[in-house]
Amino acid sequence: MSLDPVVPETRVLAIASHVAYGYVGNSMAVLVMQSLGCEVAALNTTTLRSSKAGFDAGNHTGYKQFKGTRASAEEIQEIYDGLKQSYLTDFDMMLSGYAPSAGVVSAIGSIGRDLKLKASTRPGSFFWVLDPVMGDEGRMYVSQDVVPAYKTLLQDVDLILPNQFEAELLSDIKITSLATLSEAVAKLHKENRLPHIIITSVRFNAASPKISIIGSTARLDNSPRLFKIEVPAIDCYFSGTGDMFAALIIVRLREAVTEQNLARTKSWVPPDTISAVDLPLAKAAEKVLGSMQTVLEKTKKARDESLESMGGPLGELEKEKGSEKRVHLRKTKAAEVRLVRNLTDLREPKSLFLAEALDIDDS
Amino acid sequence: MSLDPVVPETRVLAIASHVAYGYVGNSMAVLVMQSLGCEVAALNTTTLRSSKAGFDAGNHTGYKQFKGTRASAEEIQEIYDGLKQSYLTDFDMMLSGYAPSAGVVSAIGSIGRDLKLKASTRPGSFFWVLDPVMGDEGRMYVSQDVVPAYKTLLQDVDLILPNQFEAELLSDIKITSLATLSEAVAKLHKENRLPHIIITSVRFNAASPKISIIGSTARLDNSPRLFKIEVPAIDCYFSGTGDMFAALIIVRLREAVTEQNLARTKSWVPPDTISAVDLPLAKAAEKVLGSMQTVLEKTKKARDESLESMGGPLGELEKEKGSEKRVHLRKTKAAEVRLVRNLTDLREPKSLFLAEALDIDDS
Repeated sequence: MSLDPVVPETRVLAIASHVAYGYVGNSMAVLVMQSLGCEVAALNTTTLRSSKAGFDAGNHTGYKQFKGTRASAEEIQEIYDGLKQSYLTDFDMMLSGYAPSAGVVSAIGSIGRDLKLKASTRPGSFFWVLDPVMGDEGRMYVSQDVVPAYKTLLQDVDLILPNQFEAELLSDIKITSLATLSEAVAKLHKENRLPHIIITSVRFNAASPKISIIGSTARLDNSPRLFKIEVPAIDCYFSGTGDMFAALIIVRLREAVTEQNLARTKSWVPPDTISAVDLPLAKAAEKVLGSMQTVLEKTKKARDESLESMGGPLGELEKEKGSEKRVHLRKTKAAEVRLVRNLTDLREPKSLFLAEALDIDDS
Repeated sequence: MSLDPVVPETRVLAIASHVAYGYVGNSMAVLVMQSLGCEVAALNTTTLRSSKAGFDAGNHTGYKQFKGTRASAEEIQEIYDGLKQSYLTDFDMMLSGYAPSAGVVSAIGSIGRDLKLKASTRPGSFFWVLDPVMGDEGRMYVSQDVVPAYKTLLQDVDLILPNQFEAELLSDIKITSLATLSEAVAKLHKENRLPHIIITSVRFNAASPKISIIGSTARLDNSPRLFKIEVPAIDCYFSGTGDMFAALIIVRLREAVTEQNLARTKSWVPPDTISAVDLPLAKAAEKVLGSMQTVLEKTKKARDESLESMGGPLGELEKEKGSEKRVHLRKTKAAEVRLVRNLTDLREPKSLFLAEALDIDDS
């Protein structure tokens, strides 16, 4: 068992939301990346807190009581400019997550492009991972104008991590099958020259006991190399798992790319001879899902025990009049991802899942 | 080598400043505590960033370019109330650090007292560590009215971590020798019934190659049990080492108290039969300093290499006109504590230092 850092020295700019209590957005992603050895500068797009402007704190939206400040695009740009003036923007990677408005998406875009431009003479020296947080299962969290704002970034990012619904929004293809999903991936690669894609939370039948991620790294001709990794669905609502996935992918992709000697290759794209299941993206995703499954199963178990100790999953409390809010708060707290007690599972993922190649007839 | 958490499940409320880049205040303390297995809720008193109000970010004052928002006392209280309404204040420990004004000190006080009151029927179930950040080496960082504000908290806190100058401000005793320092400790114990004290950065001669911490846990009659731990001084200016010390003390004290079966004893005070060097506070401080010395020596080495690779500690840059600012920024960045690459040194402190008993004639 080794405590050595998982990755070579890696400086990451993380742009996402922040909470004082619990693990979502940067509060999840920063700890995950730091505990695996990355230096992380955190730029917070939304701070959930009690009221007025000023600093931070609050809990996350799972608690249904949040109040927050949404950082304006100008403020985000100003902070970035401040770091730049202090010569603190020598980032190797950028992870951009939740942005509360189209303006903030554009600000993230100009930061990403600035970093990309600075790195343009040194191929592979900057890699941008975009999690286009917009909604899930047919429901939008953000306003409609965020969709076109993200679309304009696709030509500059290196990897996107949409869920199935977000992939539909970005590709304008209704995804109802592996064939339509494959079509969406092919379109995203081709129209944007987008090197890497992972679509998360893929499930065509809500009753299925399995859930998949489907990834692809484009070949030189922009055609996809598709792989799929299937994991058992866990019957529990967790917050922050998208942020956990994104942060782990940052670390594991950096690791896989270093192992495959691709760190100085533009956008870390391996030669066409590398098959889908041998892609750094596939190797990285296998480890990410190994870690996540272990941590989330432990979280589910701890949650069940915690609810049990409160007097059963429903308990006495639920019988009281007007107790709905308190019951909801307790359940939300009980389901917080058990992160700090299980950092070992991040460092040492179990080999639970293997990528399989997906060969799909697009017709 | 074990990756198991160092402490039993521990929920900490951390109230201090926050920066987007670098390790000071909560940006240091939160990572240190989380990486050793504590659940941490971070309440940020000052957010250093580029301008206006709103969220967070920016670098720390070492960079001399910071701009920031100072959270008002009302805002801090509101955030705490928000957590309370969501039943998220079941903290085992509280660490309070930099507060920008007397009003914020008072707000921290009422939060600490509220948590203490809630825990009053369960001795040992809440422990408050106060780092009364006011200044160093005779120079104040905060306004004068912060001093009396801290004094009113001393009767409620469990452990204070002043440096030599701050101990003078709190005790109104000029500390110039071990005898006067011992007098200050005795006075702080007695007048406030303050159980635990550690005075950091003790050096009576600025040219000394050694620097000490001096700690004490009061006996039943409020007399001190004094111990001293001496460490070699490192010739380098680091930011955030006070926050690192405080965060590590939280973890190691919790660990030592658990080992000595004192977790259900009021303020974790061991019986009078326990001598100074066997105090949980002394055992904890030995480990804290073992970790810190290793990490800071590595930081110094990395800084020297980094400055060397820029063309010598002074380098070509320093010869240019008007380059002072950039040189200062580079040096500050080079001296950032190397934390994420050396988390092992936090988990597994070397046994470098042993506490020795201090028997001083107060006459």
